[in-house]
Amino acid sequence: MIDLSRREAFMTAAAAATVAATGIAAPAPALAQAAAPAQAPGFYRYKIGDMIVTAINDGFARRPLEGFIRNAELSAVQAAMSAAFLPTDALSISFTTLVVQNGAQLTLLDTGNGDSGAPTSGVWMRNFRAAGFTPEQVNRVVFSHFHGDHINGLRLKDGTLTFPNAEIIVPAPEWAFWMDDARMGAAPEAMRGAFQGVRRVFGPIAANVKQIQPGAEVAPGITSVAAPGHTPGHCAYMISSGTGKLMFMADLTNHPALFVRNPDWSAIFDMDADVARATRRRMLDMAAAEKTQVHFYHAPFPATGFIAKAGNGFELVPVQWTSSV
Amino acid sequence: MIDLSRREAFMTAAAAATVAATGIAAPAPALAQAAAPAQAPGFYRYKIGDMIVTAINDGFARRPLEGFIRNAELSAVQAAMSAAFLPTDALSISFTTLVVQNGAQLTLLDTGNGDSGAPTSGVWMRNFRAAGFTPEQVNRVVFSHFHGDHINGLRLKDGTLTFPNAEIIVPAPEWAFWMDDARMGAAPEAMRGAFQGVRRVFGPIAANVKQIQPGAEVAPGITSVAAPGHTPGHCAYMISSGTGKLMFMADLTNHPALFVRNPDWSAIFDMDADVARATRRRMLDMAAAEKTQVHFYHAPFPATGFIAKAGNGFELVPVQWTSSV
Repeated sequence: MIDLSRREAFMTAAAAATVAATGIAAPAPALAQAAAPAQAPGFYRYKIGDMIVTAINDGFARRPLEGFIRNAELSAVQAAMSAAFLPTDALSISFTTLVVQNGAQLTLLDTGNGDSGAPTSGVWMRNFRAAGFTPEQVNRVVFSHFHGDHINGLRLKDGTLTFPNAEIIVPAPEWAFWMDDARMGAAPEAMRGAFQGVRRVFGPIAANVKQIQPGAEVAPGITSVAAPGHTPGHCAYMISSGTGKLMFMADLTNHPALFVRNPDWSAIFDMDADVARATRRRMLDMAAAEKTQVHFYHAPFPATGFIAKAGNGFELVPVQWTSSV
Repeated sequence: MIDLSRREAFMTAAAAATVAATGIAAPAPALAQAAAPAQAPGFYRYKIGDMIVTAINDGFARRPLEGFIRNAELSAVQAAMSAAFLPTDALSISFTTLVVQNGAQLTLLDTGNGDSGAPTSGVWMRNFRAAGFTPEQVNRVVFSHFHGDHINGLRLKDGTLTFPNAEIIVPAPEWAFWMDDARMGAAPEAMRGAFQGVRRVFGPIAANVKQIQPGAEVAPGITSVAAPGHTPGHCAYMISSGTGKLMFMADLTNHPALFVRNPDWSAIFDMDADVARATRRRMLDMAAAEKTQVHFYHAPFPATGFIAKAGNGFELVPVQWTSSV
């Protein structure tokens, strides 16, 4: 991998010539604008068996800690944040989807915020393209549930569908809940926008959306797993190839420093807190027992690791970043 | 940050036109070669006060676990690896340097392997350029110590100096040790190569190398800190700007899952194991007590976090990746 031709990457010919000819180094040129602060592209690749998984980040949104957790004192939440060396005033909730590449087939799990999220989000497409993909290549988009930060990337505000060639696959119970007009009519005002958002994204293509029952295989090696509570039809997805396994946990937890560590805490986003809590305990227990690699949509990028038991809860041990895929 | 002009990033005009005109999505085009597995560039930016720090990864080298730690049973080392969900046969030791940008001044802390390392290393320059830098922009290169994986990036095998305009700054006790001909002559055969490697890199520029005493400021806001044991003149560097602080710990520990967790373990690379152990305990204690952000050269990329006490040792809590700098 290392040869002399790489010498050119190390030094421009002109600079080398100057030093060689004069023995005197020129003053360092001023920093180019290109060196202005820009973060590295937010994608990360790893293998699960023969499949190549690419995590694609969609930035983050900040929200105040106060009022975020229904059943814990603010001081306890702040203590959990401090223990993770995170700020105690606000939480940065990040968004990371997965692209699963199985041979020439691309399956996308959730879509990010599109142009409908916080100003600090909306970077998904840039990262997706930086990873070498184009939207036309996506064969199917599979959704975990219908909250805006997971579905809005499917359709821009102007109505454009993002993935022109993709089959759209959703959990049937999630569809049944959000597309029920009577339920929308009876919903409290504060929830009306969520129902309308689902219709904005899926309404024009409703006839073509494929609804699957939890437990069904949505693509070769990708199987849905019922994980209700966060929303009525919330699903995880098990990605399997050979002996490799990865569980896309979606919103089984929000930020792991809070909810993997304290699985009984309920974020205000959990629509049925009791069911969500039971699902969370059950699936974290299973991941810990079976040492299954997991992905959480709201874990710090690249949002993947393993679950270890810790006290009365668990902890997420991030996978070691590697330069080789 | 989000406007309608971004629509074009989401969909090619041709694809949009097809769908608009026909209502029928074309079959997904085959995956381009560009989507072949390539990892994201290995750089990561963050701020320390007004300074911008960029971590630059130089890949990794694998080494067998057996024989790596002098004073621990292999089974105990394997248990520590398992607890971190790492393989139990071999350790991937990664290399991550820092670029510190203070106004228009660039200071580089250590240089990676250049073209002299394992085939899985040698990616530093690609990542450095991906971060928007050029070698000519580097004003100074500061070294922690003289092991090959830290110094070889300064000079390619063909003799070329990588940073033509940089002042070279080294710890005086490190220079005194490695450049002492009598000591090289008396060194055991197995260490001879290390002495020769130091001469290969620094010999031709010896008269221009600036030696500094531990404790000296090497650039505005960057101060050396004596951290002996790993090598005789091994130095850490404290980077300070306003209330922001970052301690570049260099090789105070090798992989944190082993040596932050078990600070009394001695890697075979520690030249004076007892001194290294005392230095390690003292500096980890200080980082934990003062909640100082730290960087370890051999921590998983981006190699930065905070130190928490854990049992009889410590743990490294990685910083949360963020898409904003």
